[in-house]
Amino acid sequence: MKQIVTLLLSILIVSSCCSKSTLERARTNIFPKGGKVTNNNFTGNVWLQMLGQEEQTLNTGVGNVTFEPGARTKWHLHPGGQIILVTDGIGYYQEKGQPKKILHKGDVIKCPANVEHWHGASENSYFVQIAVTDNKKGSVEWLQPVTEEEYHK
Amino acid sequence: MKQIVTLLLSILIVSSCCSKSTLERARTNIFPKGGKVTNNNFTGNVWLQMLGQEEQTLNTGVGNVTFEPGARTKWHLHPGGQIILVTDGIGYYQEKGQPKKILHKGDVIKCPANVEHWHGASENSYFVQIAVTDNKKGSVEWLQPVTEEEYHK
Repeated sequence: MKQIVTLLLSILIVSSCCSKSTLERARTNIFPKGGKVTNNNFTGNVWLQMLGQEEQTLNTGVGNVTFEPGARTKWHLHPGGQIILVTDGIGYYQEKGQPKKILHKGDVIKCPANVEHWHGASENSYFVQIAVTDNKKGSVEWLQPVTEEEYHK
Repeated sequence: MKQIVTLLLSILIVSSCCSKSTLERARTNIFPKGGKVTNNNFTGNVWLQMLGQEEQTLNTGVGNVTFEPGARTKWHLHPGGQIILVTDGIGYYQEKGQPKKILHKGDVIKCPANVEHWHGASENSYFVQIAVTDNKKGSVEWLQPVTEEEYHK
C-alpha cells in the first residue's frame, strides 16, 4: 500500500514538472522575444523581435510578436497584406464587419491588402505570432484603438 | 529501501514519457507537415506545406519544410533572397565557399540574393524550417546536388 502511494505521488510530482501552463509555455517561445514596444499602436504590453527586415536580402518584414494576456494591436491595415503564423498561446483576429476568430498554435491567417483588422492575445493567455509583411506597397496604417467592448465581444 | 527503488523507478518511467527524442518531436511540429515533395530538387525525403503563397494578399512565399535525417536541398539560389526560420530539429546551412553552419530551433538565417547555398537536416535529426521567399525578382534557380562529401564535410 505504501509503495502504491509512493508510486502515485512520484508520478504526480514528475508529471506536474513536465506540463507547463499556457502562460509559462508562451514565455519560452522558439524565437527571441525582443524588446517591449513603446509606441502607442498597441493596448497592453507587447514585445517585438524583427527576424528579417526590409534590407538588401529580402523586401519583406518578418517579426516575432509576443502579446501579454489582453494586449492587442490598434485597428490597422497593410497596403500589401500580411501573413500571421501562430507559434504559441491563444489569440484573437478580427476583420472589420466580421466575427472575431480564436487563434491557436499552428493557425495561419492571410490578411488581405487594405482590410481593416486587429489581432492580439486572449484574456487569459499570452499569444505569440510571426508576422510576414510585404511593405513594398506602403507601410502599415494605424487607426483607432480596439475598445474593451469590441475586444470582449 | 523498497520505497526508494519504487520512487526512482517511477520517476524514470514518467520522465521517459515526458522527454521525446529529437526525431519524435520534429514530427509533432507547429505547422502542417504537408505532402512529400516528388521533384528531384532534393536528396532524401522532404515534405512541404505552403502557408502563404504568391497571391493577391502577399507577394511572398511562406513554406513549412520538413527534412528527414540526411535529406537536403540541391545547391540553389534565390534572385530575391530568403529568410529561414528554424522551428525544430538540427540542420545544416552552407553558402558556396563558406563553412557549413549547424542550425537549431530558434535560429534565423538571412540568405542573400543570388548566393549559391543549400540547407537540410543533419545526419541524425529531422529538421523543420519556415522559408520566407521573395519571388518577385524571379523564382529559385536549382543547381547540382550536394554530394555526400560536401554534406558530411
